[in-house]
Amino acid sequence: MKIDMHAHILPPKLPDWKSQFGYGGFVNLEHVAPGKAHMMIDGTFFRAIEENCWNPAKQLEDCDRNGVDVQVVCTVPVMFCYWAKPKDGAAVARFLNDHIATVVSYNPKRFVALGTLPLQDPDLAIAELEYCVKQLGLPGVQIGSHVNDWNLYEPILFPVFEAARDLGACILVHPWDMVGKEKMPKYWLPWLVGMPAETSLAICSLIFGGVLERLPGLRICFAHGGGAFPATIGRIEHGFKVRPDLCAVDNPVNPREYLKRIYFDTIVHDPLMLRYLITLVGAERLMLGSDYPFPLGEHCPGSLIESLDDISQEQKEQMLWKTALEWLNLPLSRFKD
Amino acid sequence: MKIDMHAHILPPKLPDWKSQFGYGGFVNLEHVAPGKAHMMIDGTFFRAIEENCWNPAKQLEDCDRNGVDVQVVCTVPVMFCYWAKPKDGAAVARFLNDHIATVVSYNPKRFVALGTLPLQDPDLAIAELEYCVKQLGLPGVQIGSHVNDWNLYEPILFPVFEAARDLGACILVHPWDMVGKEKMPKYWLPWLVGMPAETSLAICSLIFGGVLERLPGLRICFAHGGGAFPATIGRIEHGFKVRPDLCAVDNPVNPREYLKRIYFDTIVHDPLMLRYLITLVGAERLMLGSDYPFPLGEHCPGSLIESLDDISQEQKEQMLWKTALEWLNLPLSRFKD
Repeated sequence: MKIDMHAHILPPKLPDWKSQFGYGGFVNLEHVAPGKAHMMIDGTFFRAIEENCWNPAKQLEDCDRNGVDVQVVCTVPVMFCYWAKPKDGAAVARFLNDHIATVVSYNPKRFVALGTLPLQDPDLAIAELEYCVKQLGLPGVQIGSHVNDWNLYEPILFPVFEAARDLGACILVHPWDMVGKEKMPKYWLPWLVGMPAETSLAICSLIFGGVLERLPGLRICFAHGGGAFPATIGRIEHGFKVRPDLCAVDNPVNPREYLKRIYFDTIVHDPLMLRYLITLVGAERLMLGSDYPFPLGEHCPGSLIESLDDISQEQKEQMLWKTALEWLNLPLSRFKD
Repeated sequence: MKIDMHAHILPPKLPDWKSQFGYGGFVNLEHVAPGKAHMMIDGTFFRAIEENCWNPAKQLEDCDRNGVDVQVVCTVPVMFCYWAKPKDGAAVARFLNDHIATVVSYNPKRFVALGTLPLQDPDLAIAELEYCVKQLGLPGVQIGSHVNDWNLYEPILFPVFEAARDLGACILVHPWDMVGKEKMPKYWLPWLVGMPAETSLAICSLIFGGVLERLPGLRICFAHGGGAFPATIGRIEHGFKVRPDLCAVDNPVNPREYLKRIYFDTIVHDPLMLRYLITLVGAERLMLGSDYPFPLGEHCPGSLIESLDDISQEQKEQMLWKTALEWLNLPLSRFKD
């Protein structure tokens, strides 16, 4: 059994939001050849994608080839549109959520979906979260690592996390709009250096801001093995201890404590680093994610976990599917007769 | 034997550079009580320091207490002044270098010093590097992780690295002016999240820009265990492999290869992470650093190395002093009769 809890999907067609809302910045899809499309923003090329990014049947073919039983899909972070006017951001989120629910309907034993929220307006975000959970039956949502100028500790966002806790919705925090990207114009460095920093910033924000402390029931996962956070927990903890006047102002708890409360995917591309993570947080905090269908992901989902020869079969199963079921709060019976 | 290769020192008094140069931004020291001073920038408080930041006798007292035989000192990164006019930056660097040479003279068996360069003007930087090595007898320099808007891959900086190689000067790359600092105003996050990212950015810049490839003889060390780089080498290598069109444009060599060529200090504050580093790069790439006298450093230098019970005495000695001698290219006889 394999559950890939970190995969992306788009609708095959996107509305002309620029015309609809009267301003630009939104992604559009131009289908340029059979099975090939370009994500365009205001006529400028953003990224080339293939059918495996919008066709559930194609995604399942790949899942079958790779032995993935269940794929947990969510949108591509560039679709968050937190910068848009709130009602427009809410319309985008609604379109994406209604679409992604149809992916689940296409094969509910193989697909689980995470919703999208217009976090630039926390009230609208909470309403959309309720819609996702109560109307669409989604187990949770994907959110960005920050929202425009707000880090995740901003009090204005707290009610959204509180609503997720109350609704039992899980959260996947995905890096996007990478911190310092303007300082790293070459060599794909926003993805290689910025994303790990962005994720560490998100985790530290939720810890030092006291969000995780106030919401112990929140089931929250961070992409790409938690980025730079797990490897720098020593530095972060040491900073907390030596400068509590700077670090412990809103939460007096040692940041290391939260390693037991948060989840990470296993997209670290390195057996030594995955072993480090297993020793640091335990297999019960780790779950197979692949970042499918993007090239920076694990192309055969789960192969890194399976390659480790010095962990138990139980630990492997925990990471390959059991942790994901706990995080999603879904029973195995949904997927297996 | 213990060599602490990452410690900081300032002159006890700094010139009034603002008056001298006719514009502000420079650090001044206000001695506010016996053994206590404030680093001030244009009248604004920057950081409180104590006598262990400017008095070599006091530093040696601490070294004696902690069993440190040799301390390698360099300036505090805020003194780099890369933003200043070139000739003024050069004057600041000269003042700091002439001072730090007196620290070595104070006790050449206990102190080694790294110089400071006005990198905003590579020609002046090379001249100052020659002065440091040939006139002052310093074994190398400390540089910042970037220079204003230049990452370390910028061709304009290459001759400085080349000169260091030619002169046999070692380099310590220290994070400063942290990437994305404006996005992390709370909880000391520029130091906890920004610095590890900054160091990864510097390493990736030197790798992908081909600087390390073109200068295999360069002896270069990165602070704080290499920041986020060693833990994300899997992601960085994977990015290099899947998007060579973005990553391999200036250097076709797998970034993992450079783990064998660069040095890291051991300031990671976590035994599990230090073990990860030892397994990843080997003790011959790692050396005791403490960040003395600052609170984010290791307060008893070497205690983390000594605490590891599953590595050999040989590995410990390698990290406690042997690697540092190789990086500095200094004989043991300089310190021991």
